[in-house]
Amino acid sequence: MAKIVTVGEIMMRLQPSGYKRFLQADSFDVVFGGGEANVAVSLAQFGEDVAFVTKLPSNAIADKCIKELKGWDVDTSKIVRGGDRMGIYFCEKGCSQRGSNVIYDRAGSSIATVGEKDFDIPAMLDGVEWLHWTGITPAISDNMAQVMEKILIEAKRKGITVSCDLNYRKKLWTREKANAVMSKLVGYVDVLISNEEDCKDVFSIEAENTDINSGVLSVQGYESIGRRLMEKFPNIKYVAFTLRESVSASCNGWSALLIDAKKVYKSKKYMIDIVDRVGGGDSFGAGLIYGLRNGLGEQQTIEFAVAASCLKHTVEGDFNIASVDEVNKLARGDGSGRVQR
Amino acid sequence: MAKIVTVGEIMMRLQPSGYKRFLQADSFDVVFGGGEANVAVSLAQFGEDVAFVTKLPSNAIADKCIKELKGWDVDTSKIVRGGDRMGIYFCEKGCSQRGSNVIYDRAGSSIATVGEKDFDIPAMLDGVEWLHWTGITPAISDNMAQVMEKILIEAKRKGITVSCDLNYRKKLWTREKANAVMSKLVGYVDVLISNEEDCKDVFSIEAENTDINSGVLSVQGYESIGRRLMEKFPNIKYVAFTLRESVSASCNGWSALLIDAKKVYKSKKYMIDIVDRVGGGDSFGAGLIYGLRNGLGEQQTIEFAVAASCLKHTVEGDFNIASVDEVNKLARGDGSGRVQR
Amino acid sequence: MAKIVTVGEIMMRLQPSGYKRFLQADSFDVVFGGGEANVAVSLAQFGEDVAFVTKLPSNAIADKCIKELKGWDVDTSKIVRGGDRMGIYFCEKGCSQRGSNVIYDRAGSSIATVGEKDFDIPAMLDGVEWLHWTGITPAISDNMAQVMEKILIEAKRKGITVSCDLNYRKKLWTREKANAVMSKLVGYVDVLISNEEDCKDVFSIEAENTDINSGVLSVQGYESIGRRLMEKFPNIKYVAFTLRESVSASCNGWSALLIDAKKVYKSKKYMIDIVDRVGGGDSFGAGLIYGLRNGLGEQQTIEFAVAASCLKHTVEGDFNIASVDEVNKLARGDGSGRVQR
Amino acid sequence: MAKIVTVGEIMMRLQPSGYKRFLQADSFDVVFGGGEANVAVSLAQFGEDVAFVTKLPSNAIADKCIKELKGWDVDTSKIVRGGDRMGIYFCEKGCSQRGSNVIYDRAGSSIATVGEKDFDIPAMLDGVEWLHWTGITPAISDNMAQVMEKILIEAKRKGITVSCDLNYRKKLWTREKANAVMSKLVGYVDVLISNEEDCKDVFSIEAENTDINSGVLSVQGYESIGRRLMEKFPNIKYVAFTLRESVSASCNGWSALLIDAKKVYKSKKYMIDIVDRVGGGDSFGAGLIYGLRNGLGEQQTIEFAVAASCLKHTVEGDFNIASVDEVNKLARGDGSGRVQR
Amino acid sequence: MAKIVTVGEIMMRLQPSGYKRFLQADSFDVVFGGGEANVAVSLAQFGEDVAFVTKLPSNAIADKCIKELKGWDVDTSKIVRGGDRMGIYFCEKGCSQRGSNVIYDRAGSSIATVGEKDFDIPAMLDGVEWLHWTGITPAISDNMAQVMEKILIEAKRKGITVSCDLNYRKKLWTREKANAVMSKLVGYVDVLISNEEDCKDVFSIEAENTDINSGVLSVQGYESIGRRLMEKFPNIKYVAFTLRESVSASCNGWSALLIDAKKVYKSKKYMIDIVDRVGGGDSFGAGLIYGLRNGLGEQQTIEFAVAASCLKHTVEGDFNIASVDEVNKLARGDGSGRVQR
Amino acid sequence: MAKIVTVGEIMMRLQPSGYKRFLQADSFDVVFGGGEANVAVSLAQFGEDVAFVTKLPSNAIADKCIKELKGWDVDTSKIVRGGDRMGIYFCEKGCSQRGSNVIYDRAGSSIATVGEKDFDIPAMLDGVEWLHWTGITPAISDNMAQVMEKILIEAKRKGITVSCDLNYRKKLWTREKANAVMSKLVGYVDVLISNEEDCKDVFSIEAENTDINSGVLSVQGYESIGRRLMEKFPNIKYVAFTLRESVSASCNGWSALLIDAKKVYKSKKYMIDIVDRVGGGDSFGAGLIYGLRNGLGEQQTIEFAVAASCLKHTVEGDFNIASVDEVNKLARGDGSGRVQR
Repeated sequence: MAKIVTVGEIMMRLQPSGYKRFLQADSFDVVFGGGEANVAVSLAQFGEDVAFVTKLPSNAIADKCIKELKGWDVDTSKIVRGGDRMGIYFCEKGCSQRGSNVIYDRAGSSIATVGEKDFDIPAMLDGVEWLHWTGITPAISDNMAQVMEKILIEAKRKGITVSCDLNYRKKLWTREKANAVMSKLVGYVDVLISNEEDCKDVFSIEAENTDINSGVLSVQGYESIGRRLMEKFPNIKYVAFTLRESVSASCNGWSALLIDAKKVYKSKKYMIDIVDRVGGGDSFGAGLIYGLRNGLGEQQTIEFAVAASCLKHTVEGDFNIASVDEVNKLARGDGSGRVQR
Repeated sequence: MAKIVTVGEIMMRLQPSGYKRFLQADSFDVVFGGGEANVAVSLAQFGEDVAFVTKLPSNAIADKCIKELKGWDVDTSKIVRGGDRMGIYFCEKGCSQRGSNVIYDRAGSSIATVGEKDFDIPAMLDGVEWLHWTGITPAISDNMAQVMEKILIEAKRKGITVSCDLNYRKKLWTREKANAVMSKLVGYVDVLISNEEDCKDVFSIEAENTDINSGVLSVQGYESIGRRLMEKFPNIKYVAFTLRESVSASCNGWSALLIDAKKVYKSKKYMIDIVDRVGGGDSFGAGLIYGLRNGLGEQQTIEFAVAASCLKHTVEGDFNIASVDEVNKLARGDGSGRVQR
Repeated sequence: MAKIVTVGEIMMRLQPSGYKRFLQADSFDVVFGGGEANVAVSLAQFGEDVAFVTKLPSNAIADKCIKELKGWDVDTSKIVRGGDRMGIYFCEKGCSQRGSNVIYDRAGSSIATVGEKDFDIPAMLDGVEWLHWTGITPAISDNMAQVMEKILIEAKRKGITVSCDLNYRKKLWTREKANAVMSKLVGYVDVLISNEEDCKDVFSIEAENTDINSGVLSVQGYESIGRRLMEKFPNIKYVAFTLRESVSASCNGWSALLIDAKKVYKSKKYMIDIVDRVGGGDSFGAGLIYGLRNGLGEQQTIEFAVAASCLKHTVEGDFNIASVDEVNKLARGDGSGRVQR
Repeated sequence: MAKIVTVGEIMMRLQPSGYKRFLQADSFDVVFGGGEANVAVSLAQFGEDVAFVTKLPSNAIADKCIKELKGWDVDTSKIVRGGDRMGIYFCEKGCSQRGSNVIYDRAGSSIATVGEKDFDIPAMLDGVEWLHWTGITPAISDNMAQVMEKILIEAKRKGITVSCDLNYRKKLWTREKANAVMSKLVGYVDVLISNEEDCKDVFSIEAENTDINSGVLSVQGYESIGRRLMEKFPNIKYVAFTLRESVSASCNGWSALLIDAKKVYKSKKYMIDIVDRVGGGDSFGAGLIYGLRNGLGEQQTIEFAVAASCLKHTVEGDFNIASVDEVNKLARGDGSGRVQR
Repeated sequence: MAKIVTVGEIMMRLQPSGYKRFLQADSFDVVFGGGEANVAVSLAQFGEDVAFVTKLPSNAIADKCIKELKGWDVDTSKIVRGGDRMGIYFCEKGCSQRGSNVIYDRAGSSIATVGEKDFDIPAMLDGVEWLHWTGITPAISDNMAQVMEKILIEAKRKGITVSCDLNYRKKLWTREKANAVMSKLVGYVDVLISNEEDCKDVFSIEAENTDINSGVLSVQGYESIGRRLMEKFPNIKYVAFTLRESVSASCNGWSALLIDAKKVYKSKKYMIDIVDRVGGGDSFGAGLIYGLRNGLGEQQTIEFAVAASCLKHTVEGDFNIASVDEVNKLARGDGSGRVQR
Repeated sequence: MAKIVTVGEIMMRLQPSGYKRFLQADSFDVVFGGGEANVAVSLAQFGEDVAFVTKLPSNAIADKCIKELKGWDVDTSKIVRGGDRMGIYFCEKGCSQRGSNVIYDRAGSSIATVGEKDFDIPAMLDGVEWLHWTGITPAISDNMAQVMEKILIEAKRKGITVSCDLNYRKKLWTREKANAVMSKLVGYVDVLISNEEDCKDVFSIEAENTDINSGVLSVQGYESIGRRLMEKFPNIKYVAFTLRESVSASCNGWSALLIDAKKVYKSKKYMIDIVDRVGGGDSFGAGLIYGLRNGLGEQQTIEFAVAASCLKHTVEGDFNIASVDEVNKLARGDGSGRVQR
């Protein structure tokens, strides 16, 4: 029985090789990914017992997706099969001053048409200790938002710790709708992960003194957002912020803050040469969950989470293929990239 | 101004390389295709002035598709942009006793949600001499069936020759619905292309003495179907049948019959080592249209059409990349595959 | 708990792409395979609950192998980690008159240095109904031969059905040694799979009237071998023979016989255009086990096993990626390779 | 009818994949490019109506080139077919301290053997508003230099604006010959594009205080060159200079100056992680032409041109696949490479 | 010191991968080949000490070519460097009824502009026992024809055995010119290799009763051609004919005849599934030279030569990568393509 | 006869393409490399006459390796064939904060089981002027350590200059054993190459004031190590140190020092964007040997060696494919990576 469950959509990512633009591509690399699936895979690499819950159609494309998840040690036994299609997103990798492009083709996916009876929620959460979801899940469809609320209610009933990454997607819903739905659902959350932009988009809570593009950060500003979130959602024990400094599509600064009732914990900052930044936030979430579940302490937890997601940026695909040992090695200070032999 | 117009859906085909199965694929080759687009591209390679009409979304994936069509000299100026997505089909290439697998993901495509006002039909057919469509187009959606009928009415009003390939797709509609719609639409058709199976599925007209798998063919049987079609649809001047003998997924026999009011013209038969059989029927249609439009005479027309589609089976992708010279060389008897140097 | 267990070595196969020779290769495709693992994967695709048991080193290369097996739904929980390396074999794919080349680099592999205490045999076989192994396993090393005997003794103690594929490998041991070891171990076997050559090499039992290269087969000859095997090993209930006719490296005839106490059941013969023949015999074994376990009856079992392995020859890699439905479709007569759409 | 015409040679570029050296390459990626063709393609992506004029042989290699140009929306109807071959250049991509290598194989190309009667110059320029050429075109052969002069005379007769990129190629002609020919031809030019080196090589006009390798630039120095060019060629309204700072083969600084009768307009400078720098200058030319033709004003024009060519450095191949929107987004200040989703 | 020398042109072959047509190709596989180089490489694989003589430009493309030859154990020390370019040929692989296409781009190659003083002919032939050339070499240019004659005169002076493959190339010269030149040069030849077509094209000597496309062969017809060649060129000791039956581009029949003063030796015939037929004739020549040099006897020599070239058809590239052991295995009768393991 | 000989192991390197991790790889790029082979290949590119000596098995994998060496102009005539396998190492390329991973699979390789009689040492060193080896060679096995000592004794007897790169490999032997063996063998060495770490690991000689990760270097510290080495091994004329500053796996600082009896020569430092850092040290060794053999003088020698190895970091594979001209161009100051055209 998995002790951690994540719930959401997993999509097929189709991507031109290297730095080819969509108009130049005659083939696509195929990977699978989605916020909650990414967290599940990363946790499984850390040795956690984790299940991913979604709905996928009964065809070979979805079979391939499930095969991948199984290969990465994720429990797929709670995935429901049915519906018409799995969501697709096309991703064109950016470089230097040219940003990445994403085209979503996820309308009508199986998870979007999920019904209340598709999932046996009590069974899904049986024996579970931790539940993770992101703001993408309720944004997929009204159906899914309702199902998500039912899951959260049951989770709280069972005393399960709930973490959520705000992950606002403007192509899926408006700020108004996001605010309405998330204001309700975040009420069930114990650990909230966000960045400054998402907080502003969803809850109109803004930090001062931070310019997203320049990446000039004020710890105080973040703390003030964190405190306001904790006031609004008294259930929250931890707020974590990822701080991305987009120097260019090839190079990002990356650090994070963890805020609890009393204190702010700030991580080291990494300057990263990017291989693939998709899933960077999700790998942070996985690192955070791992740290909190394994008693690393707040400071070490935020360092672990940031180091984990730093490594993710150097790995192809949505999933973070990094072990606890590799993350610890980096978190403890060796970012020199020397060969071991 | 294009003299030939074809109307229908064009989809993105995603295919594992070589003989990999879906479950083994980590990348997909990308080509574009669809019955009517395939006919248009093939005719353009024969030097015909041809436009393809469809509706495609405003994104880079559809831009790529249009770029391809332009590269193949197809007039894309009448393509309407809008709607949500372009249809996709996944294709796993078969070999020997293992047949190819096709997974359609075309629901909700732009062309399926086409409205009456999307196309300016009189302008679309202005100066046009020949209109080609297939049974897939009205099967896409009720909308599209209605639009197709309007196009056919206008075509007949303008004295345009109309050709149609029956192309029954059981995953798109039932036999009953196909019968109802096609019985109406085929009434506008001058040249009908079919095979035995489609005739049976759509009009319940069947030849005797032919076993689809064994490929034992009776010319008389086909003639009797042709005559019955001509009775049912007095507008029809020609009925053409393709005769596929599926020895295996790697080797097919391929020939055809052309039936006019008086006579049956039978082509040579080719035993083909298959590179890619998708679009084989469409390349036949293009060859037939080319032959009839260019006064090749019935016997030479059917030989040209079969030789053209024989070559298609040796070409990757949906499109037949073969010139009139190459088709004539084969039709006149040199199938030895010798190198010219 | 898996109901079927297979025990043996799994190796990394390194293969030049397409028809490149070793001397021309600048990259290798990587797959994993081995007689018993191939059977396990194929059975898992048929929906059986199957575990593969082996010993693999603790490194990322072996991790990748296990990831693959998990993806194919094989229970890997009984795989022991340790030792120095996993075996490798290099495979150069043949074509037409040029046969495939195999270079083994398996000396010193973890499974070859397995010790008695590596496996908890009673636990390994707990709840198991069927055990499968091949003649390669005891040939790997004396250690492994001893462990294999212990496993067989425990299997018989538990009433587990045992199947074995003779699979003589002259690069691993001499005929004399094979005879000595296999004469002992086959005594525990209920279902024996072989071909004419292996029978001759291991037990010096030969059919008359059969020329391996010409592929002229005599059912009577095979029956006589089968009867002699059953006499020598009274435990055997079924002997199955695969009959390969090597027309060329690109085209093989393929059929089989199943012999029980009373009768000989002969399958259809397929002429196969080969994509990858490695694992062809193993896929037959998997089909046979499936048929016998699922009460298909002897005739249908042998047809199922041959159809399954016919499909394997059209699939890249060692593993047979074919479902029960696909095998049944072929076994019931549709080898025409037609597209379903 | 195209409103912009560019005239020159287009070659096939053959390039080892990634960072492989020529001696390591077993395959070449194929793209097409040439100074004037690159400008045409880039302008077409900006929505301009543009034709590219050249001479290409009648074979499938040149057909492929024309297919590409059509795909990118360039009018190819004025391309003359004939002659023996199309030019080829082999390109080995550099990295860090290792510069790119180019091997030209363009002798005897169709355009080099062009004759006066090959082009119908009045028809070529009918309805044209802007003509672009580079210093490579007259360097190809004496024939081509003469044809180019005839084209320029007709262009001036018709009141067409003429732009020219000096583009000195020492492998094609000597400085002396370049000086003699270009001194004549630049007399017809309204907009001259250059860099410091080319000015020195062709006209022996030099800026002080600039070290090509160190990239220390003096705006005054450039202005003085510009003024001297305007004196020598009174027809010139604008001189534009690109300023490349070669930190290494992987990283360049990139900016530009635009000089008109009164003033110098200096652009922002971008530090670029290079994907492919071939065609960087051409994409600048296209941006400049776009800006001047569309009334962007001098400052915005030079910013647009530099941003366009900055993006080019992140795109594979000779052609700049960037839209007006993408260029504007960068020119207006967002070079952070953030993903839009 | 090499004991065998071959003289001629080596070109770079650029080929779309798989069965892609030129118009579909975005990359080319790169191999090198040419009649005489192919013979040299094949002989080197048979363990012969062989040098290839040509002229190649001083650039990295030619360096790569020489690197390949060295890798295959060919002595390249006599290759002269200089001139402008190396010849290129583009090759599109055919399949089934679609033949392969070849586009030559060899004008102006270094070897075509070779001068008398480029080669030190006495040194080139010092210690040499066998000289091989083909009809392509004198067809390259008048220069090369003259150089070739000088080489042949010196060879005869030194008592070197000379073999020649007629290899008529209609794209290089007319039949009249070929006749004039070859009538002179073949006078120096001891072993002549040809097929029926080349004999007719070059010497207007024709066999009766043979239809090239149907492949109906008459041994008597070939013998009569052989006798007439021996009469015309009394120096000839052996005439060898290859007999290709082009069933399709994918499948050829392949056999040969060897004629000496007294007798005709006919080989087995192989039906070959073709991987790459370029260089098929050259590999035959190499096999023939090997057989004659190593005293295999006429019948075994022709069997060896045909088996060698049969294997070549299954190998990618111009070169025959087959050892004496592999050829013998096939020549002795095992064409079953069985795996050795 | 080669004037330089290097002795050691060459292995097959199997590497996932791009930045894929082992767990993500479905194919491996294949190159060959090893410390001494890398030096040999690099010297051959500099025009030196160099032989590489090793023992390799008699199979096609080793044939391929030898073919590569021949292609790079290395004399392979002294390679002994025999034994069971060639060593393999798997290499996963790092990026940014994620370091490269290496998995060795070299146990039981042919060179490890080399016996005294395998090599004819006097013949091996006949006419040789320079012998190079590294600390990896004696670490392979006790056998090989003994053979290496015999080779060194003979080399000294013949007055051959001996260079050695310490190259400590902790996976092959302990520090204690390395110390014992190397203390003996380095006694025969004239030119010693090392870095700070290896000196510490093997001889416990340490520089002060240097932090490996931060890369803060003290010339004095290095000089003191050098002096102590020269005291310990009076035979040594030169000690060279490479100084790597690991900013990250993607970016390294790279410089070196050369110490002779009197003086320390310090090179420029390069900041390198890394393509492939494997073999970086070996290419330095080759540059050093080239400089010392060709009388470049100490300062120019160390600049040449560092520039050579700087270029190596931009080249795929173990081998440094760089010419003397290319190295000189960089050493003399042009690291701007400008295109030559």
